Amino acid sequence: MQYRRLGRSGLKVSELSLGSWVTYHNQVDTTAATEMLAAAFDAGVNFFDNAEVYALGESEVVMGQAFKALKWPRLNYVVSTKFFWGLERDGNTTNRKDTLNRKYLMQAIDGSLQRMQLDFIDLVYCHRPDPHTPIEETVHAMSDMITQGKALYWGTSEWSAADIRAAWEIADKHHLHKPLMEQPQYHLFHRTRVEQEYARLYEDIGLGLTTWSPLASGLLTGKYRSGIPAGSRGALESMSWMREQLQDPARNAAVAELEKIAAELGGNVAQLAIAWANRNPRVSTVILGASKLAQLQDNLGALALTPKLTPEVLERIDALTKPLAK
Amino acid sequence: MQYRRLGRSGLKVSELSLGSWVTYHNQVDTTAATEMLAAAFDAGVNFFDNAEVYALGESEVVMGQAFKALKWPRLNYVVSTKFFWGLERDGNTTNRKDTLNRKYLMQAIDGSLQRMQLDFIDLVYCHRPDPHTPIEETVHAMSDMITQGKALYWGTSEWSAADIRAAWEIADKHHLHKPLMEQPQYHLFHRTRVEQEYARLYEDIGLGLTTWSPLASGLLTGKYRSGIPAGSRGALESMSWMREQLQDPARNAAVAELEKIAAELGGNVAQLAIAWANRNPRVSTVILGASKLAQLQDNLGALALTPKLTPEVLERIDALTKPLAK
Amino acid sequence: MQYRRLGRSGLKVSELSLGSWVTYHNQVDTTAATEMLAAAFDAGVNFFDNAEVYALGESEVVMGQAFKALKWPRLNYVVSTKFFWGLERDGNTTNRKDTLNRKYLMQAIDGSLQRMQLDFIDLVYCHRPDPHTPIEETVHAMSDMITQGKALYWGTSEWSAADIRAAWEIADKHHLHKPLMEQPQYHLFHRTRVEQEYARLYEDIGLGLTTWSPLASGLLTGKYRSGIPAGSRGALESMSWMREQLQDPARNAAVAELEKIAAELGGNVAQLAIAWANRNPRVSTVILGASKLAQLQDNLGALALTPKLTPEVLERIDALTKPLAK
Amino acid sequence: MQYRRLGRSGLKVSELSLGSWVTYHNQVDTTAATEMLAAAFDAGVNFFDNAEVYALGESEVVMGQAFKALKWPRLNYVVSTKFFWGLERDGNTTNRKDTLNRKYLMQAIDGSLQRMQLDFIDLVYCHRPDPHTPIEETVHAMSDMITQGKALYWGTSEWSAADIRAAWEIADKHHLHKPLMEQPQYHLFHRTRVEQEYARLYEDIGLGLTTWSPLASGLLTGKYRSGIPAGSRGALESMSWMREQLQDPARNAAVAELEKIAAELGGNVAQLAIAWANRNPRVSTVILGASKLAQLQDNLGALALTPKLTPEVLERIDALTKPLAK
Repeated sequence: MQYRRLGRSGLKVSELSLGSWVTYHNQVDTTAATEMLAAAFDAGVNFFDNAEVYALGESEVVMGQAFKALKWPRLNYVVSTKFFWGLERDGNTTNRKDTLNRKYLMQAIDGSLQRMQLDFIDLVYCHRPDPHTPIEETVHAMSDMITQGKALYWGTSEWSAADIRAAWEIADKHHLHKPLMEQPQYHLFHRTRVEQEYARLYEDIGLGLTTWSPLASGLLTGKYRSGIPAGSRGALESMSWMREQLQDPARNAAVAELEKIAAELGGNVAQLAIAWANRNPRVSTVILGASKLAQLQDNLGALALTPKLTPEVLERIDALTKPLAK
Repeated sequence: MQYRRLGRSGLKVSELSLGSWVTYHNQVDTTAATEMLAAAFDAGVNFFDNAEVYALGESEVVMGQAFKALKWPRLNYVVSTKFFWGLERDGNTTNRKDTLNRKYLMQAIDGSLQRMQLDFIDLVYCHRPDPHTPIEETVHAMSDMITQGKALYWGTSEWSAADIRAAWEIADKHHLHKPLMEQPQYHLFHRTRVEQEYARLYEDIGLGLTTWSPLASGLLTGKYRSGIPAGSRGALESMSWMREQLQDPARNAAVAELEKIAAELGGNVAQLAIAWANRNPRVSTVILGASKLAQLQDNLGALALTPKLTPEVLERIDALTKPLAK
Repeated sequence: MQYRRLGRSGLKVSELSLGSWVTYHNQVDTTAATEMLAAAFDAGVNFFDNAEVYALGESEVVMGQAFKALKWPRLNYVVSTKFFWGLERDGNTTNRKDTLNRKYLMQAIDGSLQRMQLDFIDLVYCHRPDPHTPIEETVHAMSDMITQGKALYWGTSEWSAADIRAAWEIADKHHLHKPLMEQPQYHLFHRTRVEQEYARLYEDIGLGLTTWSPLASGLLTGKYRSGIPAGSRGALESMSWMREQLQDPARNAAVAELEKIAAELGGNVAQLAIAWANRNPRVSTVILGASKLAQLQDNLGALALTPKLTPEVLERIDALTKPLAK
Repeated sequence: MQYRRLGRSGLKVSELSLGSWVTYHNQVDTTAATEMLAAAFDAGVNFFDNAEVYALGESEVVMGQAFKALKWPRLNYVVSTKFFWGLERDGNTTNRKDTLNRKYLMQAIDGSLQRMQLDFIDLVYCHRPDPHTPIEETVHAMSDMITQGKALYWGTSEWSAADIRAAWEIADKHHLHKPLMEQPQYHLFHRTRVEQEYARLYEDIGLGLTTWSPLASGLLTGKYRSGIPAGSRGALESMSWMREQLQDPARNAAVAELEKIAAELGGNVAQLAIAWANRNPRVSTVILGASKLAQLQDNLGALALTPKLTPEVLERIDALTKPLAK
């Protein structure tokens, strides 16, 4: 496992990291989570990604219990959370949902710290942009979390390049803590934002990337090539919105070809997809998701494939996927 | 009930809100206050307005007890207080009354938090301008309340446009928290400040408005058309200063005509007056005052009238009231 | 008693105030101090001046005990302390004496708060200039006391106009709390600094003055006209350095003439001298010192003389004293 | 003992000070450390240098226990620590070692405070430059330690002039606490950085110097002239990397000549070397290291030699050492 600076920061994150989206509490209990965190940590993973909204707070509770059981020194791991959607799905959700206003953010960080049983969270993200809150209000609140010692660094997730730059400039003008990293979707079929939209930000403001969905929600494992298998993420009721996309014929055909390339290199298609995201030097860490220990261990096999992605191999991969990517 | 951004901020307040001026402690005890807060909340009201000076602190005590009884999640409601007049009416009141100096403000916020039994107050206002304190001193103190986590946003009440802009510019220069909202009197007979004096501030600094006295202290209910009824606000000893104004013949005659328009639209004149204030897109929320539950529920009926205020109806209302307004 | 803004600030101080220099602990115990504080407070005095060095901390202890006994609401009085000389007179006094460095200042404020049993001190002063500490270091430390809530306003004592302006400019540049007031010696025989050196600062930065020694250490009471009376301040061993000055023949002769003017106006020379300092509109408050209640009450009689200081009277006073003043 | 301002700051440090590098915990236990601290303090030393990495935290523990036993008033001594290498030597040391990132620094200061049993540490240093962390991130974290009251002043150790200036400019731009002092190696055979590279910084930013290794790890005591004596620092396993340098023939020959000069002046070569460093007015304090009380007392004898370093003597010393120095 290699470690990379998170953007221009001095914080180093493992090239592969472990997220809890979808899986925790829903598919993974504290015992299983602890087992997987331990395995990842032993393999060199030092960054564990979370969010307030994952399982509506329960994902933070599970991860917090696992940290407590594992007793790692606090300097040895980096943990994140993200704010935007809130925890409430019913009743009057004004100021509790889909917002980055000061009221919500200042209460949200306290809730996350309590659920995770931590004194501070390393990375806090604005989980989505909020067009109804001025960027200055959000920047001030995120920076205040750092000043108050509740967080160390802050960033965004799925923000436009223009909004990220605006946030950075506002922080610079008012001498606040600047946004450091962005968490975008990034995989073989979703590349434009990372490769084009953000291009100037890497140099200009030192933006780091913690990318999610390297396997395109499982499409890049090949398991959706013949429909939705029972027990898969695509079979979850809450994930029904992505079923059509998972069964896209052209993409699944491309996956079949990628499987061959992976086999040539001595791996499988999931490992190839992860290695492909990991080979981008702008990516600080590729966040893996896993509902089973075996799956995590298989995914970590991507490390062996990364150095095999020669320019020639990358060209073959691009020919198959770029025309189908956005 | 609709929710509007408080000025340019990301905080959303209900278009109608509930204040405790005059009524709490004087006419309304904790039980009645709790009942009215609950009814307002159930109707969608999320902003509850208060001030240190209302019933000399007792209004904050009553509202705090009501919040405690109601057990709403803290994210679900927005509460305010205001500082200027202090709590003392006798003895040497230097630095305790009619001031916005640092000494008074830093002690006032602590007193309000204690009386309300809250960890923070969402909105804190400078209740009036203080020509004897530099705006910079006041801006620094109000901003410090936010930095210390005791408040979330700050604003002014009945300040001139020039002073509001000065406060905003000073905060911007020194990287402090900027004033966000103003609480002006605004009703059919009091319109100049909101409609003309503040005109540039809405765009330039994103000023929000939480308006008070939509019924002109009851004049716009029509109940003062034949004198001061016993038990009305105008009959309170402390309100004697406004009795003459409440019985102004020309205005009461206009009210009689407004009653007819209200009846045409299927409401009463109070509902019409509230709906009229509410229809102004510069107004973030119209603060209602009520001493009885029935009155509150009647006033909330204004929501049904708001969409009926067509340009034609508004023209008729203007013709009746604009010449009598300041 | 009238109240004046402390410089351009919104804080109001009584035109006459009470200091504890020399007297507390040395000549005045807690019981007597409490009695005099109560009498001054009843007469309208709201500012009580102190310093760490007065009786090496004991003056703060005595005043703190008096406050505790008197139970005044905290908003009703303004209290000060000052830092520079430290509390230690023997051993290695590096960084503990004659300094305004950060190390000393940050520890000094904590000591004063503890001795006075207060949560915050209204006014904190740099008791003298320190040419061996950069003004920026001192400004940052004084401002930090305010940010931390341990003090409300800060100022200087016996600083040059150039240093005061430098401190103000540094605070403005770095967005820190600015110095507000200066405590200079000011009496009929010591006028240049207040009347000439600081002239531009009143308008340019809104400097306020809390002046000390209105009676020129007793010279202006007339009691040193025939030598040093036993029991007087001049008889204290620690005050021996000023004995010669107290017996200056020309000045004592002028005092004899002033006594006649005072008698014409219905007062005594001490009252005249205090009234003279008080009549300067640049002076926010004249700090009185008293070792006995009767003396304090006599001095407060100056209030009656102030309005009698007509231009004609002031001219006569100037003719007598200006040639002998520095 | 004389006291000098630490650079342009108002903090005064003794010209000779005592460090705990190498010796504490390894060669010196708490009893011996307490004895040496007491002797140094009695001789006028007021600065005691430490670092997190010295004996991996144990040096801080030992010094903290000694302080506790000695019960000096906190204003009477200045204590330092330094951060960079971390405490861990095995396992995954990402973010725990060789870093000045925010995550490490914010945890490191808390650890040092706990080990030293202190409320604040006077001087905190970045123990080495970290090319993998932006200077802005480090400046913000170091300044935050001061804002939080955990430290009073911050500086660097073995940083380039360019990096020190960059840190100062960033702090000035963002109104943060500026770096004040640098801790460079400085002795007769290591002079370029102090005498040439930093030359402009003394005037431009008021940089102070706390220099280490005045005896070139013992070379300048003459004791390595005939090999590595048992029990010497050079005989420690952890110091094996410097053995070759300690036995450099040309330098040891120069030491033999220096011994003669020292003898002429009535001292020994170690005292001469310390006096030579001390005579540089850019040096705020020369940090001595000692594993035995007798050695410390001998080194303090350098004070008597300093005034004897006339221009003529300095020329003779330069002629012997400058050609061999870097």
